[in-house]
Amino acid sequence: MPEDATPMQRFTRDQIEAFMARCFAGVGLPDTDARTVAHLMAEADMLGKDSHGIFRLPGYIGRVKAGGFNPTPNMKVDREFAATALLDGDNGMGHLVVKRAADMAIEKAKTAGVGWVGLHHSNHAGAASVYSNMAMEHNMIGLYVAVGSANHLPPWGGTEMLLSTNPISVSIPGDEENAIILDMATTVTSYGKVKVYAQRGMEMPEGWMINKDGTPLTDASKSDTGFLLPIGGPKGYGLALIFGILGGTLNGANFGRNVVDMNADPSSVTNTGQFYLAINIEAFIDPADFKREIDEVIRQMRGSPTMGGVDRVRLPGESAHAAYADRTANGVPLPEPLLINLAKVAADLGVDELA
Amino acid sequence: MPEDATPMQRFTRDQIEAFMARCFAGVGLPDTDARTVAHLMAEADMLGKDSHGIFRLPGYIGRVKAGGFNPTPNMKVDREFAATALLDGDNGMGHLVVKRAADMAIEKAKTAGVGWVGLHHSNHAGAASVYSNMAMEHNMIGLYVAVGSANHLPPWGGTEMLLSTNPISVSIPGDEENAIILDMATTVTSYGKVKVYAQRGMEMPEGWMINKDGTPLTDASKSDTGFLLPIGGPKGYGLALIFGILGGTLNGANFGRNVVDMNADPSSVTNTGQFYLAINIEAFIDPADFKREIDEVIRQMRGSPTMGGVDRVRLPGESAHAAYADRTANGVPLPEPLLINLAKVAADLGVDELA
Repeated sequence: MPEDATPMQRFTRDQIEAFMARCFAGVGLPDTDARTVAHLMAEADMLGKDSHGIFRLPGYIGRVKAGGFNPTPNMKVDREFAATALLDGDNGMGHLVVKRAADMAIEKAKTAGVGWVGLHHSNHAGAASVYSNMAMEHNMIGLYVAVGSANHLPPWGGTEMLLSTNPISVSIPGDEENAIILDMATTVTSYGKVKVYAQRGMEMPEGWMINKDGTPLTDASKSDTGFLLPIGGPKGYGLALIFGILGGTLNGANFGRNVVDMNADPSSVTNTGQFYLAINIEAFIDPADFKREIDEVIRQMRGSPTMGGVDRVRLPGESAHAAYADRTANGVPLPEPLLINLAKVAADLGVDELA
Repeated sequence: MPEDATPMQRFTRDQIEAFMARCFAGVGLPDTDARTVAHLMAEADMLGKDSHGIFRLPGYIGRVKAGGFNPTPNMKVDREFAATALLDGDNGMGHLVVKRAADMAIEKAKTAGVGWVGLHHSNHAGAASVYSNMAMEHNMIGLYVAVGSANHLPPWGGTEMLLSTNPISVSIPGDEENAIILDMATTVTSYGKVKVYAQRGMEMPEGWMINKDGTPLTDASKSDTGFLLPIGGPKGYGLALIFGILGGTLNGANFGRNVVDMNADPSSVTNTGQFYLAINIEAFIDPADFKREIDEVIRQMRGSPTMGGVDRVRLPGESAHAAYADRTANGVPLPEPLLINLAKVAADLGVDELA
């Protein structure tokens, strides 16, 4: 995220987490679930995923109130094999459903080597790396894929928006080095980032979006009139398609034309699909050896000489680790327009303001 | 692959397969293995993967003769869990090792829901989709990832070539529609395609490769002086890194600086790493329902209106299906320079020529 044009006020993680928990409890989630969602959303903010943390609170609260989320879901396992499960999220908040999937996949991977849990009737779950990171404390690699919560691009060469950014996140633990965390949309940028640019009145670089006639779209406030661009053109289209099928179609979740735009429609059941894959490192190699090897990989990459104008080579996840350190020390920066929205939410729910 | 500048002669699949089997038997592979490798290489040609089929024969034969491949490998399972295995390929030809991995993963997925087999001491295995396709006849989705057989790009912003194209292939069966087959390098193009361009004296488009100073490289004969470009810049770098770790480091195979350039070094053990993932559709949804849903996905994508200048939207794998149909009917087209090389191989081994 580039330098911001609007002033920022910082809050501790505890402050934003407690505030969000108050709001979710206030709108009808059981206390434990309210705290869990708040915790996972705050984790996104700590990781620097500004478009997927507390920024989403007003939208999520509005969706619970409009009946779009089930505040008291009864999740159940539809199908189960030794290494897999299909979980029905009962339209609960995605954070709760995906966390359940991660827990199940990790448990299965302990004995099966890998665990894969597919989801239907889940919902938007925020920052993907929050979930892929969960596997690492179990000496596992975490991988999470989601069908995006609104379609923002057509198949390559087309003009009907049938695909979402369908992100993937993979977390791989190092030993002394920070984990490699690749958390990416299959598009050049995520729609969440576009929304942050729009909210902050910032112009987008060329290459992020195109208009329907193929010309560059750089005004973030007009994002709904154009398309996101997939990485590598037809290849990114292919990845978005495959991830959409594995996250959606395979699980009986929505994909393609029947994806519900979460932002445009606050009350319909989205039937969001995702999957979580946990890979038990021990099934392949001694975890301590592996982590040392990952350190070596990281040091090789970082040690590469650079092209002119590049200060140093970066690893996926570096900015997240830097944000985590900064926000642990200094708090999470929130822009004024968001604070105004959060105050409205608090007033509306009759809960204590963020402070 | 664009229109070719050199004349082509066509051969039936049986002709090229029998010829390759003669060559591999002639160089010391057991008859069954020689036929298996020939079959899998011919399958690549049928799929239109011109840079990964019989085109590779002279190089492979040279490598067996130079001691770089073990013609009589004794593969063994190092580690095994319910859904996973780590397989030691004993430096056998990659085709034999990856096929074994696919068979094992498919078998495990029948009972575990998914099967994941990692490989070390494998080798270059040709076209990735040949393997991912294998799962489909078992009502499974196949996914295959390989550490490339030579490094052709630096980490994003760097200049030391520490990464390969690390391809992924995913095969998803339809019902009435052809399967979706996404077979792609994490770079804008594959090095195999660059080699075909070089052999045929064709100029590459801008965007495929860059020189070490970042300027476009379009002369395919000078490909060893530049870098392949990853899709989506840092994102493609991230994917190549993650796939390299999952295919290589996790399996105790080479990755990064210790990758052996198969083309430059004919005799060293490459310790190539790959993994194969089979996903049993039945673990998530009725396979017949799934295939009908995939047909619907395909028809939605193909039915999208198009941008100006685009005749129609394509699905990943369309060109492979078209090549397969054409080559089944008309044979596999081979260019004159390749035929000359193949004749030399035959003469050298004292086997009957391709005819």
